[in-house]
Amino acid sequence: MPILVMKFGGTSVATLDRIRRAAKRVGREVANGYDVIVIVSAMAGKTNELVGWVEETSPFFDAREYDAVVSSGEQVTAGLMALTLQEMDIPARSWQGWQVPLRTNSAHAAARIEDIPPENIKAKFAEGMKVAVVAGFQGISPEGRTTTLGRGGSDTTAVAFAAAFGAERCDIYTDVDGVYTTDPRITSKARKLDRIAFEEMLELASLGAKVLQTRSVELAMRYKVRLRVLSSFEEGGEDAGTLVCDEEEIMESNVVAGVAYSRDEAKMTLTHVEDRPGIAAAIFGPLADAGVNVDMIVQNISEEGHTDMTFSCPVDQVKRAERAMSEARETGEVGFKDLVADTEVAKVSVVGIGMRSHAGVAAQMFKALRDENINIKVITTSEIKISVLIDRKYMELAVQALHDTFGLDRAA
Amino acid sequence: MPILVMKFGGTSVATLDRIRRAAKRVGREVANGYDVIVIVSAMAGKTNELVGWVEETSPFFDAREYDAVVSSGEQVTAGLMALTLQEMDIPARSWQGWQVPLRTNSAHAAARIEDIPPENIKAKFAEGMKVAVVAGFQGISPEGRTTTLGRGGSDTTAVAFAAAFGAERCDIYTDVDGVYTTDPRITSKARKLDRIAFEEMLELASLGAKVLQTRSVELAMRYKVRLRVLSSFEEGGEDAGTLVCDEEEIMESNVVAGVAYSRDEAKMTLTHVEDRPGIAAAIFGPLADAGVNVDMIVQNISEEGHTDMTFSCPVDQVKRAERAMSEARETGEVGFKDLVADTEVAKVSVVGIGMRSHAGVAAQMFKALRDENINIKVITTSEIKISVLIDRKYMELAVQALHDTFGLDRAA
Repeated sequence: MPILVMKFGGTSVATLDRIRRAAKRVGREVANGYDVIVIVSAMAGKTNELVGWVEETSPFFDAREYDAVVSSGEQVTAGLMALTLQEMDIPARSWQGWQVPLRTNSAHAAARIEDIPPENIKAKFAEGMKVAVVAGFQGISPEGRTTTLGRGGSDTTAVAFAAAFGAERCDIYTDVDGVYTTDPRITSKARKLDRIAFEEMLELASLGAKVLQTRSVELAMRYKVRLRVLSSFEEGGEDAGTLVCDEEEIMESNVVAGVAYSRDEAKMTLTHVEDRPGIAAAIFGPLADAGVNVDMIVQNISEEGHTDMTFSCPVDQVKRAERAMSEARETGEVGFKDLVADTEVAKVSVVGIGMRSHAGVAAQMFKALRDENINIKVITTSEIKISVLIDRKYMELAVQALHDTFGLDRAA
Repeated sequence: MPILVMKFGGTSVATLDRIRRAAKRVGREVANGYDVIVIVSAMAGKTNELVGWVEETSPFFDAREYDAVVSSGEQVTAGLMALTLQEMDIPARSWQGWQVPLRTNSAHAAARIEDIPPENIKAKFAEGMKVAVVAGFQGISPEGRTTTLGRGGSDTTAVAFAAAFGAERCDIYTDVDGVYTTDPRITSKARKLDRIAFEEMLELASLGAKVLQTRSVELAMRYKVRLRVLSSFEEGGEDAGTLVCDEEEIMESNVVAGVAYSRDEAKMTLTHVEDRPGIAAAIFGPLADAGVNVDMIVQNISEEGHTDMTFSCPVDQVKRAERAMSEARETGEVGFKDLVADTEVAKVSVVGIGMRSHAGVAAQMFKALRDENINIKVITTSEIKISVLIDRKYMELAVQALHDTFGLDRAA
């Protein structure tokens, strides 16, 4: 039998009724001839309740106990989902992380998956079981303790199972009906994409599109797991949602696949920095140690042995960056004059694998922004992405202009 | 280090505050020089919530999935208790049933403990851990699935750990402060016992005293685990609560230790039963198959090849008993004239190991009841117990009269 992985997030299993709705979708795929592996999250709100108890009990908690407590949420949903399927006369059973076993390293609360031996579940499929319901987000450490995978852990669990079992597809049921050319709250012209390449999805996810966690897309790309994102609240046929897949599966597409944005950015400039070998390491080492997520970096041309160094980071990390830099100056690691923070900026990006073969995308992007009189503060590019920092007040206008200029409201 | 087992029930860990209070008691025993094994129940109300979800999902549920869901409650408390102890700088960690492992048979939702290998936890004690917090009520089946132990499972877990680890004592923290000579709601003269023998506790538990589950007392008696029942809501010294122990530890005691009662009994009489070999089996076989818990049985003297057979059972099983008997008559298994049900009776019992060596307890009991004009309907006796069925309306009067006549308001 071909294997299908289906993952239901917290809102999709928030009540017994919603679990029943999700189970019906599973039943339909069983009727289609699949052996199904269902990955479930905790019922919406449960994980927050458990985390709240842990934090109230122990502000600097032992992550091993955190994992023991927090993993119970998925365990409950998995049992209830298995029971619901059994009520529909579908042979099903639940599996906790340690039962599979989903082996992880020992980095509690943020563990990485190391191995998913498929033998146990495959043996049950061979005996006639049709659905394995697996508690997402959890595994077992080499020491035999329960681990959790951290943010996005359930999506990652689903992709890892699809890879380990050679599943035909991994369907991620969520509260949106797919991946859009941009945020529909910003322009009503935003259009759902039928397909998107792994690389594009990865850029969009890391740029703030909240549909899929970066980590799960990375894993899907590495193992070529076809990933479908679709809504658990809408009915749709075979073509529902968005398929995230290898670019070879995408026949024809727009040069630009989507426009992403990140609202709360800050632009930091270190002025009059001594320009010497190793200066970048001297600056960005302490920032990394302080937990500042530096994104874009631009270095000015040097004048008289000095330069300006500009970088961007999330606006809520500005204080941390300032502290790290003033400490680095005190210890003599870095010499600079001022650290100027502009906390009123946003990042807007266009993403598309078509850029690789089409020249002129950057020029068209800059022209569209100029036509709206939007000043560009910083530019960075990658093979399939161009990002700019602009004043935050122009962010929505910029997204709309770029969506229009690249014709994203129309399919290729 | 000597080992102490401490068990906290659902009301004793109902909130984070109460978990902290329980942890303080644990801390005191650690300061007293013990390595402590703490057995915890789910926070009060949690198990009912989980059971409710299971039953709503699937009225005739798969007990394996029931166990997967319901066992999560204890898991949460165990993690929170370990964190609380860590906050008090006491080295502690949590263990789920499968981690110990607490091995059970495969009778899901009512599993029996088969083995508790102490090596894993002992190794941690040797490394400096002071408290092992164990999720009560749960284990692992030979198939590697989570099992639960059914009613009274957490008390039973605690006693089994005390036996497996050779603990000095097993302290059961609950919402009453010990075992009483009788129910204090019936007579204010009821007195807390400092000590009670296993056999007496066993009779009292099976007669309806709700302090300890029969199963845990049986296990304690078999392995000679000294069991202390005490309140988690009151402070008490070394002598707090009631010690359930071997009778050799009880120097001097009253002939009668306590008076128990069971309010909702029914007396059933089969009239004009054919008196032949095998007739008792023919009657009580079908009753057992129908799930009727027959308690007392009395057979009248036979007249002309026929007899009357009287038995008692819980009043809510009368319908079931009537159905079973009329079916047995239809199939010709049993011949009788009428089945007369008296649903207005109660059972009152006196219990005490002193009866073994003291004659005249029964006579004194019957005289006390006669002095109150209470008619006795059925009598049964065991080595350390005498029970009578009487009209329910006299139950409280009977308990008070018996408590008085045996002088239970005064210590021996």
